[in-house]
Amino acid sequence: MTASLAELARYLPHLVLRTEPGDLEHYGRDWTRRWTPAPLAIALPGSIDEVQGIVRWANAHRVAIVPSGGRTGLSGGAVAAHGELVVSFDRMNKVLGFDAVDRTLTVQPGIALQAVHEAARGHGLMYPVDFGARGSCQIGGNIATNAGGIRVIRYGNTRQWIAGLKVVTGGGELLELNRGLVKNATGYDLRHLFVGSEGTLGLVVEATLALTEPPPPCNVMLFALPAMDALMRVFGECRRRLKLEAFEFFTDRALHHVVAHGAQNPFETASPYYVVTEFHENETEALAVFEHCLESGLVTDGVIAQSDAQAAALWKLREGITESLAKYRPYKNDISVRIAVVPDFLDAMQVLLTREYPDFDVVWFGHIGDGNLHINVVKPAHVSDADFIAQCETVTKRMAAILHAHGGSISAEHGIGLVKKPYLASARSEAEIALMRGMKRVFDPHGIMNPGKLFDP
Amino acid sequence: MTASLAELARYLPHLVLRTEPGDLEHYGRDWTRRWTPAPLAIALPGSIDEVQGIVRWANAHRVAIVPSGGRTGLSGGAVAAHGELVVSFDRMNKVLGFDAVDRTLTVQPGIALQAVHEAARGHGLMYPVDFGARGSCQIGGNIATNAGGIRVIRYGNTRQWIAGLKVVTGGGELLELNRGLVKNATGYDLRHLFVGSEGTLGLVVEATLALTEPPPPCNVMLFALPAMDALMRVFGECRRRLKLEAFEFFTDRALHHVVAHGAQNPFETASPYYVVTEFHENETEALAVFEHCLESGLVTDGVIAQSDAQAAALWKLREGITESLAKYRPYKNDISVRIAVVPDFLDAMQVLLTREYPDFDVVWFGHIGDGNLHINVVKPAHVSDADFIAQCETVTKRMAAILHAHGGSISAEHGIGLVKKPYLASARSEAEIALMRGMKRVFDPHGIMNPGKLFDP
Repeated sequence: MTASLAELARYLPHLVLRTEPGDLEHYGRDWTRRWTPAPLAIALPGSIDEVQGIVRWANAHRVAIVPSGGRTGLSGGAVAAHGELVVSFDRMNKVLGFDAVDRTLTVQPGIALQAVHEAARGHGLMYPVDFGARGSCQIGGNIATNAGGIRVIRYGNTRQWIAGLKVVTGGGELLELNRGLVKNATGYDLRHLFVGSEGTLGLVVEATLALTEPPPPCNVMLFALPAMDALMRVFGECRRRLKLEAFEFFTDRALHHVVAHGAQNPFETASPYYVVTEFHENETEALAVFEHCLESGLVTDGVIAQSDAQAAALWKLREGITESLAKYRPYKNDISVRIAVVPDFLDAMQVLLTREYPDFDVVWFGHIGDGNLHINVVKPAHVSDADFIAQCETVTKRMAAILHAHGGSISAEHGIGLVKKPYLASARSEAEIALMRGMKRVFDPHGIMNPGKLFDP
Repeated sequence: MTASLAELARYLPHLVLRTEPGDLEHYGRDWTRRWTPAPLAIALPGSIDEVQGIVRWANAHRVAIVPSGGRTGLSGGAVAAHGELVVSFDRMNKVLGFDAVDRTLTVQPGIALQAVHEAARGHGLMYPVDFGARGSCQIGGNIATNAGGIRVIRYGNTRQWIAGLKVVTGGGELLELNRGLVKNATGYDLRHLFVGSEGTLGLVVEATLALTEPPPPCNVMLFALPAMDALMRVFGECRRRLKLEAFEFFTDRALHHVVAHGAQNPFETASPYYVVTEFHENETEALAVFEHCLESGLVTDGVIAQSDAQAAALWKLREGITESLAKYRPYKNDISVRIAVVPDFLDAMQVLLTREYPDFDVVWFGHIGDGNLHINVVKPAHVSDADFIAQCETVTKRMAAILHAHGGSISAEHGIGLVKKPYLASARSEAEIALMRGMKRVFDPHGIMNPGKLFDP
């Protein structure tokens, strides 16, 4: 144990500290596997006071802190590879309160998203942010990355559901931000600044989440579509005539993989694009939309779920994609453009990929209604791991340039972390990045909070 | 003309500059009437380039800038009383574009809120932020104060509808923030920082507004209620069973004034509280709610509008309050607490007012579903103007303390400006205010942007 760590143990005698190699490895990395975990130690505070104590100690000894949630991130935002102290919220994972009038749930940052869902459901309400990692990810990490997912088209991102936040800044101050108020016009909204700040300004130590009513009964449709333009028109039609809860697309290559992994293909012939959409139950209108789209040639085939089991099977075609690709350890990226720009962007990417990387197995899927596309590339068998990684770096570089030209973003919902840091300037101007650096210095004068993530100091 | 102003005229030869006394008076003040307007001059830029030029000149000459919209503010945020250059956006008031797929409207900052409503309606969509000053207020000012209004309960504040912002910082940089993206996880969200910053960080020079579908046909109900606790229970019932577009309350004193001003009182006997609620048309359920509330003694009387004219007449009882009081030039304040805390807060205020200011005519109304209450006090005839103003200052001071104890905010939607600056510390901690000062220095290194508003440098 280093001298400074021994002092931390003396200073906070009840703080749980771990330094075993297995813990350093476990807590030092996230779902990216690019960096070798090498934290100084793992601190598992049990209270806000302990978090403040840790930050004071870290400032005194100039030790870097990596805030740590469920570490399901894909951008390396929670990686500790340079002797940082990982501050894990695994022990601060409780529901602290529920207010039936304000419809808010107050929680500690280490609570899993799924536990938030269950607590809300227990009160007849819903916390509507949802995505695949729900069982492992923690609400503190969701806030740090402004997590999105499959319901953003109706409910927005995490940001929209944060009624109040307690944070400890890099300077060690405990701030109570917004305190659950609906309206509060009293200067800069620091709550919104912390949402999406990736642990670089401070640590989220408590959150008050707004809840809402669960949706009415929903139904699920699957469409097969001949072209991207048709897909955009079907989106317009569905959005206008149905109350959408989700509108997700994927390509034929995605369907290929998810079917190879065991899902059932309801179609006999292949189509370039597919859509799964969930909407407030309205069988008549849904059938009318489907028939209109079929007659107009916008869709070539379709299925409306007739049971919950069939709805789940249709969703499986979209939600099973990531898992079906996992064994290939594919290249992944998560980008966004304005919704109207999706077809042009995909065209430009298709030109690039066909010309430069003709043997890449490219899988697209994502949230059309948010302009958010996920790209996965499976390594061709004849290409070595090293060559594949090198080629994918050039894909990212070129995609960043295409995104820049299309007014898009190199990170829709995964965050910047370490993985996308080299490409931040494709989405944010030099002036913006300089201002972000200046703001970080205000909140974190000694630069101890997750240094090297988002941007270099 | 001062030497520096002459240089501005030379530097930007097409800039419209006004220095006539009538203009200085007109553009130097807002709806508050406490300060004597004394700006240096009024600049009316016609382009973003001109705005940037003004900011460069202002930095070089250390001239303070007051950004100016419709000046309908009630907190003095747009007052220019110390030789500032007022930058009015009256000439930058156009719709620049509409995107049907993204459902966004791009506008210049000087466009009136009502013109935004009309432009959205022209495309079959709705910009849902709405309040009484719609004809005069400008969208740039709405953004600078995160304006709220009567539809927040369903649609949220202005913040929620800003898909992109172009701003010129105090340092003179043009930033394009978020560019209309739905998802964009690329670091600190500067767009949200500018929303509600009251012109202290820079000038909003363009906004991309998200639009939504208009609501289905709505109906309006008016309730008479015996007590605040009953009102909160009726709110819970209505929110659970109806799709609320608005839920507004007012007191018997408010009804007295609005009826004296010409509105029609539909009730024969007086009640302490009244509620106007608008909801998605559902006559059966609305009647069931009403009957349940009547049987439980939660309401003592009620009306459901049977025509658009009757709906308008019911709304008039709430929306006509401010106008009915205008001739008295009442003391006004706009505060918020968590929704659940409204009854306790009102009790505490009632104790204070009854004990210390027994002859004050106190009128409460506001947005219960947002925890946002407006207080108006009419001067008793026997009290002098000066005494009344002095007494009202002590009311504000004591109310700020009561708000602080109840976790509330001294400004729900009017902003801090000059009027509430002495009370900012009741809603935000010293640490938060210090961080806000630090952030201002990052965006506005020479302190030229609306100095003295929100907080002192």
